[in-house]
Amino acid sequence: MKTSVSEFTFGFMGLGLMGGSLARGIRKYVLSQGNSSGKILACDIHKASLEDALLDGVIDRGFSYSDVSQMIPECDLIFVCLYPKATAFFLLEYEQLFSPHSIITDIAGVKNPLITKISNTWKRTDVVFVPGHPMAGSEREGFAHASSEIFKGRNYLFLPPIGGREKIEMEGCHFLSQWATKILKEIALSIGFSRLIDTTAKVHDHKIAFTSQLCHIIASALVDSAEDTEITAFGGGSFEDLTRIAMINAPLWTELFLEDREELLSHISSFEKSMAIIRKALEEKDEVLLENILAKVREKRISMAKPKNL
Amino acid sequence: MKTSVSEFTFGFMGLGLMGGSLARGIRKYVLSQGNSSGKILACDIHKASLEDALLDGVIDRGFSYSDVSQMIPECDLIFVCLYPKATAFFLLEYEQLFSPHSIITDIAGVKNPLITKISNTWKRTDVVFVPGHPMAGSEREGFAHASSEIFKGRNYLFLPPIGGREKIEMEGCHFLSQWATKILKEIALSIGFSRLIDTTAKVHDHKIAFTSQLCHIIASALVDSAEDTEITAFGGGSFEDLTRIAMINAPLWTELFLEDREELLSHISSFEKSMAIIRKALEEKDEVLLENILAKVREKRISMAKPKNL
Repeated sequence: MKTSVSEFTFGFMGLGLMGGSLARGIRKYVLSQGNSSGKILACDIHKASLEDALLDGVIDRGFSYSDVSQMIPECDLIFVCLYPKATAFFLLEYEQLFSPHSIITDIAGVKNPLITKISNTWKRTDVVFVPGHPMAGSEREGFAHASSEIFKGRNYLFLPPIGGREKIEMEGCHFLSQWATKILKEIALSIGFSRLIDTTAKVHDHKIAFTSQLCHIIASALVDSAEDTEITAFGGGSFEDLTRIAMINAPLWTELFLEDREELLSHISSFEKSMAIIRKALEEKDEVLLENILAKVREKRISMAKPKNL
Repeated sequence: MKTSVSEFTFGFMGLGLMGGSLARGIRKYVLSQGNSSGKILACDIHKASLEDALLDGVIDRGFSYSDVSQMIPECDLIFVCLYPKATAFFLLEYEQLFSPHSIITDIAGVKNPLITKISNTWKRTDVVFVPGHPMAGSEREGFAHASSEIFKGRNYLFLPPIGGREKIEMEGCHFLSQWATKILKEIALSIGFSRLIDTTAKVHDHKIAFTSQLCHIIASALVDSAEDTEITAFGGGSFEDLTRIAMINAPLWTELFLEDREELLSHISSFEKSMAIIRKALEEKDEVLLENILAKVREKRISMAKPKNL
């Protein structure tokens, strides 16, 4: 069992925007020492991504999906960077192939269905799955747009580990699951995240439905309601900022929306209620009410903690 | 009559975020030559803003509101950087004080009510009012946050001039109004704007109600509907980007919303319809429809021209 991350063999299951950015971050900030014996392996459906990553010196070896069972047993830590349903499938399908004492983590944007599925069937006590959610991204997709710098000042959410109940004594930790979470948090800080949050699947899916999914739906509806695509000639930044995320990965977000449907629908209702209150004040030319709402909103937004890189 | 802007005496009526940024831009990019005899005067209700601007070398002299009638006749070009209703009041109140052949422009975010009012009463043929809208801003207010760099890559909208029908022969222009617009466009390019758009009050108010006012209402409703101010611990940038403009100047935006009420209400309806279509697809778990909507929105957003600085 390796004790230092600089000796780890990292595995990336999916080397798109997020997998690629995490791999770049780990190469740059975790395996940067001259004497580091660590390696990065990656499996992706796009051969070109693997070739680019090899040329850039980000990964040491690339694997096609058909060869994934060769990669898995070699890894000490695997980042599963797939869509939520594919993440569950991968974990269940390959559970027996993970190396003893290995750590598995994911990046899925919805956790409840995934975690319920895994918790109900996971058998390995010598392998731990730590669900995680690095809160970063880009409207650009794929390894070609991956960057080690998108994590600066961002939030990384961690959920209670599954499996890994094996006892170990390591750096003050008594269980594999405890040590794995510690290791992942150290890596998160190393690659630029500034705020690590411990949360649960229920809280995660409720909050993320608001901060992420609702925002993507609003941005999409706003673009949908634009009369024409020349509207940006009249833009001063607001429309552009509100709709950048409407350059959306349609299959991924359809899955995220549907997997977190109940929470999302409840947030949509709240948002529509707030819109209706403002619209009514406008319809009734209620200047005092309108100004009061805006003043209250201003204070509320200012009091919200801002990401540290802004 | 001065023919070169580097010899102009510029006047700023209001030296807040926008007036201050324009004044800084003109000082830096228009009056920067060593032999420039141009001056910048400014009138503001906040004495501290004038003092800061004097100390920074942005303005040459400051005037209180009670001394504004001393400033006006000295100016060759006045930027009226007030709220829309105050802009109309200023133009009508001081029409007779403007220097012969002077150019007046404004920055108001709603044009129809203002322009109707001015058009109906404006008498000076030797003074021209060119309504303008520099599409830039910040969620921060006041001269302290003014910057000459906020205009980079932005749009500047110009509307048909009022008054200035006096014939002149200058740089290929036959009327004062024509020459004034030419001068203002040259200044706009000098201080960083990259796209100059000629439009009308009607088109302006219709488009701006969408790109600017609707966006501010959506951002405000989104902040209003947030359960708590700790939500940003779960933020990954989307919520932050969508709601930065909710740090809103409440009195200004109340006025803008009410002055452009009809257009704004019609855009709110369109937006709510688009939201309802997405919500229904989600309620009915219609995966195919949802993915189709998102894919269409993605293409639409990508095809929209982006500001050049993004």
